Amino acid sequence: MSTTRLESFSDGVLAVAITLLVLDIKVPPIGGGSHQTLAHALLSDWPHYAAYATSFLTIGIIWVNHHAMIGRLRETDHAILMLNLVLLLTIGLIPFATALFASYLRQSHGENLAAGVYAGAFLIMAVAFATLNRHILFRKAHLLKTELEPDARRQILVRSVSGVLPYILATAMAAVSAYLSLAITAAIAVYYALPIASSSQPAGE
Amino acid sequence: MSTTRLESFSDGVLAVAITLLVLDIKVPPIGGGSHQTLAHALLSDWPHYAAYATSFLTIGIIWVNHHAMIGRLRETDHAILMLNLVLLLTIGLIPFATALFASYLRQSHGENLAAGVYAGAFLIMAVAFATLNRHILFRKAHLLKTELEPDARRQILVRSVSGVLPYILATAMAAVSAYLSLAITAAIAVYYALPIASSSQPAGE
Amino acid sequence: MSTTRLESFSDGVLAVAITLLVLDIKVPPIGGGSHQTLAHALLSDWPHYAAYATSFLTIGIIWVNHHAMIGRLRETDHAILMLNLVLLLTIGLIPFATALFASYLRQSHGENLAAGVYAGAFLIMAVAFATLNRHILFRKAHLLKTELEPDARRQILVRSVSGVLPYILATAMAAVSAYLSLAITAAIAVYYALPIASSSQPAGE
Amino acid sequence: MSTTRLESFSDGVLAVAITLLVLDIKVPPIGGGSHQTLAHALLSDWPHYAAYATSFLTIGIIWVNHHAMIGRLRETDHAILMLNLVLLLTIGLIPFATALFASYLRQSHGENLAAGVYAGAFLIMAVAFATLNRHILFRKAHLLKTELEPDARRQILVRSVSGVLPYILATAMAAVSAYLSLAITAAIAVYYALPIASSSQPAGE
Repeated sequence: MSTTRLESFSDGVLAVAITLLVLDIKVPPIGGGSHQTLAHALLSDWPHYAAYATSFLTIGIIWVNHHAMIGRLRETDHAILMLNLVLLLTIGLIPFATALFASYLRQSHGENLAAGVYAGAFLIMAVAFATLNRHILFRKAHLLKTELEPDARRQILVRSVSGVLPYILATAMAAVSAYLSLAITAAIAVYYALPIASSSQPAGE
Repeated sequence: MSTTRLESFSDGVLAVAITLLVLDIKVPPIGGGSHQTLAHALLSDWPHYAAYATSFLTIGIIWVNHHAMIGRLRETDHAILMLNLVLLLTIGLIPFATALFASYLRQSHGENLAAGVYAGAFLIMAVAFATLNRHILFRKAHLLKTELEPDARRQILVRSVSGVLPYILATAMAAVSAYLSLAITAAIAVYYALPIASSSQPAGE
Repeated sequence: MSTTRLESFSDGVLAVAITLLVLDIKVPPIGGGSHQTLAHALLSDWPHYAAYATSFLTIGIIWVNHHAMIGRLRETDHAILMLNLVLLLTIGLIPFATALFASYLRQSHGENLAAGVYAGAFLIMAVAFATLNRHILFRKAHLLKTELEPDARRQILVRSVSGVLPYILATAMAAVSAYLSLAITAAIAVYYALPIASSSQPAGE
Repeated sequence: MSTTRLESFSDGVLAVAITLLVLDIKVPPIGGGSHQTLAHALLSDWPHYAAYATSFLTIGIIWVNHHAMIGRLRETDHAILMLNLVLLLTIGLIPFATALFASYLRQSHGENLAAGVYAGAFLIMAVAFATLNRHILFRKAHLLKTELEPDARRQILVRSVSGVLPYILATAMAAVSAYLSLAITAAIAVYYALPIASSSQPAGE
């Protein structure tokens, strides 16, 4: 199968997943409590906005990286398709993890677990990404568009794997504080979105 | 990354966001009040139809303008991708803002705030659009397909920025009347949809 | 704008709208009534399956016809884009009309109105389609890929317009019987899906 | 119509259907029972995760097979488009069947029927797939890109049809045990995802 098809299907799943995130932000119920104004209700929903922005940016960055990864391929095979499917499966879970986290962040019970699931979902996604990248670079080097020196391939993989580390931290910190975990996850997204992240990575990932 | 990928991902997000709008229009509950017929229930839901049409047209027009903007580019870079992602993030919020506005328009509390959020969501989207356009035209002029005189570039940007102004008005007027705010927002959409808007803009935006 | 972009955005909206139809089919509530088994609950939901199949086929056929219509164009302009946007707006409403109709079909109140809205949604869609087709064939004949004799153009338009007629019947019959209206709407979808419809239409619409 | 359009529309429907699966996984209600922690609530939701993974993999594999099937075609005709539409209609039902099955698996009533509907949905999808494949290979052999010997065509069809058999088993076993039915359905997905399935099928299906 050509990489075009793989990319267009993956783009479709990513575009739907990123747009479904908005369904987690609910309209405050009308007359849901006469002592609470709409302004209060909207403001107290801030975890949903923070989680929306964090998840949106993260999925967007994964999309950019996904193209860099697949763009190195001349063609695909069954194993690449299936590892890509597993990656998409983990991305498909992010709207759920986002909704769970945003709903429980301000509760007195379950907020640490919810934060752990949220950061953990990104962690699993990053692991699936690095696994597919490793498979492409080292097992399917003959399918690459342009041959890459082992050193160059190792360098790309190191960047992929190092993207996993901060999510390990964010997941572990969820046990300490759900807010801290969100701060780390959001910081990762902002870091990769800023020019500094790409200018230091000439190979594009 | 080629602009094709950027366009197809953006198209995907826009297509999903525009189609999710319909989820805001709910089927009236069966037997939700024996003194109210289905006809009454459907008619009293008119804010949802008005908001649906306004948001649908507005996203559709943003889609047309987005292609004009990206179509000027020969290729993209990290900063363009990220500013585009921020634009998509604001578009992704429109189904929520639409649902909020339509639900509160006929209430006696919160209707002005809801209208402010609705017009404000379009305002933020227009600002994100103008910001990306400015970045492309003035910071990334070397990535344009065909070189443009500073004058031509300034003219295009002026049109983008002037698209922001009516949304400032609509957001401000929300404090006075939610209905007036809707009328302005709907009028903007209809104005850009009519031939007059495009015939006066030979450069296509 | 090239027709490719127009087609891919329209395809996106159609693909999302057709797939959102399934959200109307709800899982029967667990223990929703101890005297009713799951089998009963599923069987009594048949209007949702019938409406799902009818709407799915109808949107699918619109998709085929949409490509035939746009495929005649060499390029598009602002008016075509906007008339196409209006067509997409009517298609975007079909998941709502489907849910409304399926929910009310077996009620003793509102079922005729719901059927009228359902058939009426298809009617409006067919009118929007014929309007765009007329605009392309007679106002924008200079944008056609291959020149068409007025007679050939008239013939294509007659087929488009004649697709409107059975929906007028289905909408009118809704006042008599919601079931009859559904039967007509479903029969239209099946008729266009069968080989007979295409074999008698060499020009592809 | 070119096969490109057919593939891109089908990709769209498949991408939306696969991503909608996540909507079945609900956030546990806050304070939904003070004696139940979030951890318990999440763990007891395991049928939703198992069903999500099974359905996601299955739709993903159908996507791969769909491209192999359509990739053999030089062009399409009305009958192929319509049989493909019926296939998409069956795929569109999978999010519902998944939600139904996951909701009822752990209930004492209805779990066998729900499992039967779930496996049955895959069975119908496999039948629709084999039907379209048979139509392409034997009725529309003149539309194939490269001529295939009757023997080669028969071999491809045998593989398609043999994909139907395990779903017959899974559907029948639902009457015995819903868990057994899930195990079979999940095993089918894993089998086709593993390298063994593709390496034994040089023709790519």
